[in-house]
Amino acid sequence: MPGGLLTDMYELNMAASYLRHGMTDQATFSLFARRLPADRGFLVAAGLEDALDFLESFALEPEDLAYLREVQGYDAETLRALAGLRFTGEVWAVPEGRAVFAGEPLLEVTAPIAEAQLVETVLLNHLTFQTSVASKAARCVLAADGARLIDFAFRRTQGIEAGVAVARATAIAGFAATSNAEGARRHGLPASGTMAHSYVQAFPDEEAAFAAFAADFPDRTTFLVDTYDTVAGVRTAAEVARRLELAGSAVGVRLDSGDLADLAVRARRLLDAAGLRQAVIVASGGLDEYAIADLVRAGAPIDAYGVGTRVGVSADAPSLDTAYKLVAYGDRPVMKLSPGKMTLPGAKQVFRGPRSDVIALREEAPPPGWRPLLVPVVVAGHRVAPPERIGVMRDRCMSELARLPAPVRVLRAPGTVPVEISPRLRRLQDDLVRTLRERGPA
Amino acid sequence: MPGGLLTDMYELNMAASYLRHGMTDQATFSLFARRLPADRGFLVAAGLEDALDFLESFALEPEDLAYLREVQGYDAETLRALAGLRFTGEVWAVPEGRAVFAGEPLLEVTAPIAEAQLVETVLLNHLTFQTSVASKAARCVLAADGARLIDFAFRRTQGIEAGVAVARATAIAGFAATSNAEGARRHGLPASGTMAHSYVQAFPDEEAAFAAFAADFPDRTTFLVDTYDTVAGVRTAAEVARRLELAGSAVGVRLDSGDLADLAVRARRLLDAAGLRQAVIVASGGLDEYAIADLVRAGAPIDAYGVGTRVGVSADAPSLDTAYKLVAYGDRPVMKLSPGKMTLPGAKQVFRGPRSDVIALREEAPPPGWRPLLVPVVVAGHRVAPPERIGVMRDRCMSELARLPAPVRVLRAPGTVPVEISPRLRRLQDDLVRTLRERGPA
Repeated sequence: MPGGLLTDMYELNMAASYLRHGMTDQATFSLFARRLPADRGFLVAAGLEDALDFLESFALEPEDLAYLREVQGYDAETLRALAGLRFTGEVWAVPEGRAVFAGEPLLEVTAPIAEAQLVETVLLNHLTFQTSVASKAARCVLAADGARLIDFAFRRTQGIEAGVAVARATAIAGFAATSNAEGARRHGLPASGTMAHSYVQAFPDEEAAFAAFAADFPDRTTFLVDTYDTVAGVRTAAEVARRLELAGSAVGVRLDSGDLADLAVRARRLLDAAGLRQAVIVASGGLDEYAIADLVRAGAPIDAYGVGTRVGVSADAPSLDTAYKLVAYGDRPVMKLSPGKMTLPGAKQVFRGPRSDVIALREEAPPPGWRPLLVPVVVAGHRVAPPERIGVMRDRCMSELARLPAPVRVLRAPGTVPVEISPRLRRLQDDLVRTLRERGPA
Repeated sequence: MPGGLLTDMYELNMAASYLRHGMTDQATFSLFARRLPADRGFLVAAGLEDALDFLESFALEPEDLAYLREVQGYDAETLRALAGLRFTGEVWAVPEGRAVFAGEPLLEVTAPIAEAQLVETVLLNHLTFQTSVASKAARCVLAADGARLIDFAFRRTQGIEAGVAVARATAIAGFAATSNAEGARRHGLPASGTMAHSYVQAFPDEEAAFAAFAADFPDRTTFLVDTYDTVAGVRTAAEVARRLELAGSAVGVRLDSGDLADLAVRARRLLDAAGLRQAVIVASGGLDEYAIADLVRAGAPIDAYGVGTRVGVSADAPSLDTAYKLVAYGDRPVMKLSPGKMTLPGAKQVFRGPRSDVIALREEAPPPGWRPLLVPVVVAGHRVAPPERIGVMRDRCMSELARLPAPVRVLRAPGTVPVEISPRLRRLQDDLVRTLRERGPA
């Protein structure tokens, strides 16, 4: 969806006003999550790729300008100024797959203020949504304790584009495959999919359906066994597999309703008794990290989890309390004093140490051995590197998850990694608060 | 986002299998919400327009077929069959803006089974998401008790396309405007937008910022007053309005943090004392129907609410428990027996009476004076009417909301409208359960 109107109307009005008043100084905006949602000990950064795509192609097209003239009453001079706008700035960001915590900038933009202002809405949107989903998906990966996870969310994501983004975000977080055909194609992911209840019902009986499907897909047959009666369905699946001489892990059963822990045990016994020891048991149906953890704790012999809606909309935290705040304009650091919404002034960096993070000013040197999280990704309006491959981001995420302290990884009431403010940044903030308060009521 | 791969991989595998087995009979699928989320007494149907757009343009393009051949190993004969597929079926649906309840079909598709199966994912996606949001937005409209509502969600919706859909869904539910410039343009909605904190901060002080903005937009100046100190900000706004001789409802203040009820009272007094009796007070910041109801109950003198994230992601119910179930194949009604997921067989209609609804078979006649909810919207693959205008759908929704019984309209622990099953449909279901159970374990 191209177009320079992919923004809030107030961004356009502000940009118009900046241009009219000749305000073209460099502004730095910082994008961060003010706090973590309940039961989140960490976030997994995601959405940067879509954000950078947007920045590189940002422009108001003739039809955008026509709308602003005809419907919003913009004057010719303002429209000329807007027509020439491209994103020419610099972006520092945390790479996708990296763990981040409350208050840490995910991304900082430095650009002439009109440009930096106009891109706010889309940057916030991509990073907020995709970070929510990647974070939720990473929790499922931790809960699954080595079992495979498959993204089943496409049918109930918040829009089609969201579904494709979910396929990618869950892959970054460690999911093994997606049911989403377009998501799989676009992002080079393994596509997973077998049969729905309707398939079973379209045949005269379950056995006929299973036999037909196995004949068509003998190398990847997962029988959906709960259309009528799950245990009977497993027996039928085993019988069809025997008759058609299917074997190994190409055979599977999917349990989609009922007591999954109990049914998995019964299915495993029946499959083993039928000589199908390598047959795979897939569980699905309203799963999330909590349900997966319960099944793992119960010792359910489940090899793969199909995880859909609850991850695809990040059901218990469908958004993050993110902000995109002006922290410097021209040579002047700035901040907000609104209750509960105070901001950290200046362009920043985050240093990750062995047991804590420090938010510092961009120009500060890291403590020896500490690693900076934000890296330059756009310079003079252009990316400094091609898009990262999913595998690279996934490896990064897996190593991040492995490094998280145990109390931060737990699903309920997790701890978090301490995030400190560097002495220099703290001093700048204190000085600025004093200056703003001394100036008195406007 | 065009493309025949906008579906789950299992839909493609099933469609391939149906085609290989010569299964081309007409199938009817029913799309409905199994139950309402907690604290929802009704849903507002939405998303149909995007669903119909998709159906009319459905086709597997050469690059889709290439992917299926090269990556998924589809054979040439299957690919030829898939290449020729278009949606040729019939669709009955509940018009957007209509209130619906648990179990009632929002939409039914009748088409050759491969076609009907392939479109499942996208139909479920659009109707689930947009119905969630329209329903949440309608609750805000009820809570606001006549105050204006403005969609502020774009920055935190689940993707860009979702943001544009939210602008439309909230408009259907009665919102007066949207901050989303592209949403406003695309759907012909009033666009609303003034200034952010960054604008105030980019000027040397608040007064300079207010004066600059008012000079640029004298006919629609809403001052954001909480960047430093809200009450001082209101005083500055009043002073700037006086100096620039702004008047009437073209002047407004926006409160975006703090105790909104208290601040609105204080802002009203200051504005009235400054002779700005018509100046508008806008409140925003994490609002939803619950917060709006509290403010209305407190008598806060707020003229308009900017409602963002919580409605844009339907925060307390970000998805619905929707299903798309095969209910007939060929001349045979079908159903599922899975625990908690039993379905109603056959093509259906819903009749709305004075105090209850009845789900009946499609061919049944309504009780005298009862109105059928589902209307034919696609015949032989094409729409029977042009897209409805937003105003038509909004009027429909407003009259639906007005007709809802009081206990169904309340925000917490609402009642619901009784939904009965017609005797004929009940008989068909009972007979079919008996037949399926007698057939025994597969």
